[in-house]
Amino acid sequence: MEENKRPLIFISNDDGYQAGGLKYLAEIARQYGDIFIAAPSTHQSGKSSALTVEIPLRAKLVANDCEGGHMTFYHVSGTPADCIKLAVNKLMPRTPDIVLSGINHGYNSGNSAIYSGTMGVVFEGSFLNIPSIGFSYGDYTSNADFTPCEPIIRQMIELAVAGKLPTDVCYNVNIPKCEHINGTKVASAATGRWVEEYESRIDPHGEAYYWLTGKYAPTDPDDDTQDLYWLQRGYVTIVPCRADQTAHSAISNIAKLINQ
Amino acid sequence: MEENKRPLIFISNDDGYQAGGLKYLAEIARQYGDIFIAAPSTHQSGKSSALTVEIPLRAKLVANDCEGGHMTFYHVSGTPADCIKLAVNKLMPRTPDIVLSGINHGYNSGNSAIYSGTMGVVFEGSFLNIPSIGFSYGDYTSNADFTPCEPIIRQMIELAVAGKLPTDVCYNVNIPKCEHINGTKVASAATGRWVEEYESRIDPHGEAYYWLTGKYAPTDPDDDTQDLYWLQRGYVTIVPCRADQTAHSAISNIAKLINQ
Repeated sequence: MEENKRPLIFISNDDGYQAGGLKYLAEIARQYGDIFIAAPSTHQSGKSSALTVEIPLRAKLVANDCEGGHMTFYHVSGTPADCIKLAVNKLMPRTPDIVLSGINHGYNSGNSAIYSGTMGVVFEGSFLNIPSIGFSYGDYTSNADFTPCEPIIRQMIELAVAGKLPTDVCYNVNIPKCEHINGTKVASAATGRWVEEYESRIDPHGEAYYWLTGKYAPTDPDDDTQDLYWLQRGYVTIVPCRADQTAHSAISNIAKLINQ
Repeated sequence: MEENKRPLIFISNDDGYQAGGLKYLAEIARQYGDIFIAAPSTHQSGKSSALTVEIPLRAKLVANDCEGGHMTFYHVSGTPADCIKLAVNKLMPRTPDIVLSGINHGYNSGNSAIYSGTMGVVFEGSFLNIPSIGFSYGDYTSNADFTPCEPIIRQMIELAVAGKLPTDVCYNVNIPKCEHINGTKVASAATGRWVEEYESRIDPHGEAYYWLTGKYAPTDPDDDTQDLYWLQRGYVTIVPCRADQTAHSAISNIAKLINQ
């Protein structure tokens, strides 16, 4: 972070630039630094780390230095990962000091985080060695009240601003929707998989089509090292993550198998 | 694998159902089992593990029991991850015994694999605990000659058919385009990041637009534990991967930081 300067905080999300969760996160973050938002023009849930390859991107300025504070706000015609890449390369005055994503309207817990556009932003931040944090709240409605998210957002931003948050990992934070939040647990992503994933329908012309649906079936629902266990018990969860999916511990065994 | 039955091998890719790499992979794989292909209707490079959420999917039968062998061939109006999910849930007679993806027209090496639609298929296979392998070849042309890929494809399929390939990880295999292949190395994904990523242009109406471009800058180009090092020296590389991005070794340190 440059000395004597307010931190420059980049924010994006996957619900699109008009989402309430994005606005809520920006309102808290602007108390800690200058804000630069580049969020998707349209809803981009489930977009993972997808990039737009075959068509070019557009960026549209929504607001600049609004409300007397320092907040620049674009929307971008692509995925969440497109938004941060384009912002860092072409739109921002300098590389940001902190990357935030969300607040997502709905959980990104367990190994389902692989599909998360919210985390797609965060992994891009981690490639830049910047403290990068995604926030997701267990209320899927568009008019969700994000008040329960405020304490953990402040705690994470304050750690980042103070330079205390390790940047060799990035952070997937989920906040439970419940009567009372019991605390915060650092955990691994729950293991499981989606089942009964598609609903078949027949269109008016007699042709089949398929809607994505389904439910998440955890492999070990009673494993108290996993995020889902704690979310269901009213705890905020933080999963430290790496973009690199190498299974390092498997390398030597596979090498023996391949070269024998 | 069910006894006395030919293995059922699922194949998809991200270059689309008409790609030469897909056809080449299927022609080898059908010598080992019955083939079920569900590949994207259109080009889906860079789609990572993205899912189609807001519109339904269509599946179109291209061929069934073609050429006297057992090969069923669909194309699906979505991403690579959509293809395997829809196939396993709605199109296939049973869960496949092996999942293959590719052959991709171009490398998916280093931590760029996070963007790979080829690997999006493979990670879905790994959620099902099925041996799952992605193949990528360093020739980006549509009429590439995939002959150099044949030995490693056979070796990996034969290990999978024999039940020898561990299924707690999945496999990202890259084949170099070069005069002579020197061997095979099991490695970790190269660390690095993309730089100079967008080219700005002005449209006929005076508005800016941005094309994704750029180049990959490895952090440690001389690190011989990384795939890129060996690809550049004429070796096939295999990176064992996990879908779960939890940084397990970081959990206890972050927990101390958060709860102090």
